[in-house]
Amino acid sequence: MKYNKNFDRLENEYIFTKIRSSASEYSNSSYPLIDLGVGDVKLPLFKKTVDAMKDACQEMACEKSFRGYPPAVGYGFLRDKIAINYQNLGTDVSADEVFITDGAKGQLGNVLELFDSNINVLFESPCYPAGAESNLLRGNNVDFCVGNEQNGFIPYPPTDISYDLIYLCSPCNPTGAVMSKKDLKIWVNYALSIGAIIVFDSAYSEFVSGDFPRSIYQIEGAKNCAIEINSFSKSLGFTGIRCGYTVIPRQLEIPQKLYKQWLGRRFNGVSYVSQRGAETFFDTEIRKAVEKRIKFYKTNVEILKIALKNLNLWYNNTVCSPYVFAKTPIGETSQEFCQKLLLSLGIVATPGSGFLRGGEGYFRLSAFCSREDALNASDRLKHLSID
Amino acid sequence: MKYNKNFDRLENEYIFTKIRSSASEYSNSSYPLIDLGVGDVKLPLFKKTVDAMKDACQEMACEKSFRGYPPAVGYGFLRDKIAINYQNLGTDVSADEVFITDGAKGQLGNVLELFDSNINVLFESPCYPAGAESNLLRGNNVDFCVGNEQNGFIPYPPTDISYDLIYLCSPCNPTGAVMSKKDLKIWVNYALSIGAIIVFDSAYSEFVSGDFPRSIYQIEGAKNCAIEINSFSKSLGFTGIRCGYTVIPRQLEIPQKLYKQWLGRRFNGVSYVSQRGAETFFDTEIRKAVEKRIKFYKTNVEILKIALKNLNLWYNNTVCSPYVFAKTPIGETSQEFCQKLLLSLGIVATPGSGFLRGGEGYFRLSAFCSREDALNASDRLKHLSID
Repeated sequence: MKYNKNFDRLENEYIFTKIRSSASEYSNSSYPLIDLGVGDVKLPLFKKTVDAMKDACQEMACEKSFRGYPPAVGYGFLRDKIAINYQNLGTDVSADEVFITDGAKGQLGNVLELFDSNINVLFESPCYPAGAESNLLRGNNVDFCVGNEQNGFIPYPPTDISYDLIYLCSPCNPTGAVMSKKDLKIWVNYALSIGAIIVFDSAYSEFVSGDFPRSIYQIEGAKNCAIEINSFSKSLGFTGIRCGYTVIPRQLEIPQKLYKQWLGRRFNGVSYVSQRGAETFFDTEIRKAVEKRIKFYKTNVEILKIALKNLNLWYNNTVCSPYVFAKTPIGETSQEFCQKLLLSLGIVATPGSGFLRGGEGYFRLSAFCSREDALNASDRLKHLSID
Repeated sequence: MKYNKNFDRLENEYIFTKIRSSASEYSNSSYPLIDLGVGDVKLPLFKKTVDAMKDACQEMACEKSFRGYPPAVGYGFLRDKIAINYQNLGTDVSADEVFITDGAKGQLGNVLELFDSNINVLFESPCYPAGAESNLLRGNNVDFCVGNEQNGFIPYPPTDISYDLIYLCSPCNPTGAVMSKKDLKIWVNYALSIGAIIVFDSAYSEFVSGDFPRSIYQIEGAKNCAIEINSFSKSLGFTGIRCGYTVIPRQLEIPQKLYKQWLGRRFNGVSYVSQRGAETFFDTEIRKAVEKRIKFYKTNVEILKIALKNLNLWYNNTVCSPYVFAKTPIGETSQEFCQKLLLSLGIVATPGSGFLRGGEGYFRLSAFCSREDALNASDRLKHLSID
């Protein structure tokens, strides 16, 4: 039997599986676990969202309103609202370019079925590993364009090499770096000049404030070269409900055609209940509540930053992210330091080495936690001994 | 840009996308459309299932009971009940061999990521096309072992050729053929003898009656060579809710290990609401209601069969399927005949040519419809002119 030899290109265990399992083994009653590891939301869904989902369930109980297979492309009611949201950003994304998905993570790998399996792919790194690992698994050649403290974790494209696909994420998980329109324009121009397609992960778009772009389509020319992947996980708290969307512009003629073919053959759509819940995101009242919640998480970020500052640990001081990306003390690897945080303080953090090239020497704290957890973590960090 | 050249190996449009769109173009007020095309359930969810889903939504509204990312393997409450169900069939499938999915269709292709992309794959055909098309898309070599009227659409394995993967489906979509334990044992022994893995699609297992196996694991040796893929779509009416499961036995040491790695990296789990709904399938009262509903659909099958008999059209006379697989009149291709059914009688049927090798010359009627639709279709068929 011929197993996929590309599994050899990966670590044995996915980083978040690993930190979840080390957290589950932790037991120290004096320091109950504070999970700042996996970027999973902790606050409940909004009442209006839950009510919409309950109504959708109830519709399924009656023959007249029952719905079978969802359209593989997604329901029109949701695609339309996403398109209007794009139009409000000044982009011209239309509903028939929006495809409903069960979340962003799967899509970072699923889109690869549109392309050959020996293509050259560039990742801005350190990066969320799912996309790069999906590429390695498919047998693609994966390169990294590495960010660092000097460039604010926003590297510029290489000048002399060509790629087929380029993965970007802004605001970036894990570094928190957010690209300006000028930064993103440089990447779009690079992609256009070499005929590459950008896979733009905008899962944290709701954390953007100020003049930074929330969508790559706010950049001129992007509709000719970019696929955008987003989800309701981090905004509406949908990690457990599973709903997101992918935009494939009509201008990407062949990828859109192939994606539609792919959808019909490989995918039976997203739960009606999840789609009805996701629809409430576009309700004015819910939008305000989401904004408030994002401010809440950002305040957690600031609390954690102060604690790190008091320890004289460097962190990427950005304001559009639910994560704090910080430097480990000199002489400690990211795994060693995260192990120390866990064993001596009961704090789960993600070692930077899990975020691939350029991640070693850093760690990530997720601020998707209760205020109490942020404050307790901050208190505990005072007791950290740094040699 | 290097697109996936394997798309050239496929028809431009997926068969069910095609019949959906030709149905949507139909307009003849004297014969309102009767959709016996796509195998999509039409009856509502059971009250207890809907209530469980509404309760799950409500849990999400409260911080104490809120749930974020589902375990990638699925929730224990559901895996446990599926395992007990397997044990009730006399198999020793345990909960840690059961992986919750968003349905069967995606899985028929997703499991391919465990294997190399140039493997040799055998399909019993005519067959549901999603699995074979996923294989073609991945660049695999696809062969067909063709069933026909003589062998009751249960072909025996080849004697002289070796394969890496073998796809079987029983009860079979589209032919309705159901393998006896003896038939299935022949395939299991063949797989064991050549070191192949069987991908067993048991999506229609609840339609099995009598002594026919409902799971491949009822066959000795199958845990050493078979992956089983099932869903709640056709039993609990979950086509719109999306929940299924895949069994990868511990005995398949490397595939299980790779699948777990794959899960963490490529998948963020299935909606909590869908999993709570699926759990009700194992409630005694719901099981009885499912049985009753399956009898209801099977009565539709019998109604349609009588109509075909009166037309002197041959059909596969099996009793464990929601489909009628029948022969087109002499001299008419399956597409021509289905076009005639649609245009002259307003009945949507699926041409056998959509079910790949061996399907031409046949058509499939889905009995997943209301009694009224089955009776009306039967009435209309009386008016069919066969040359």
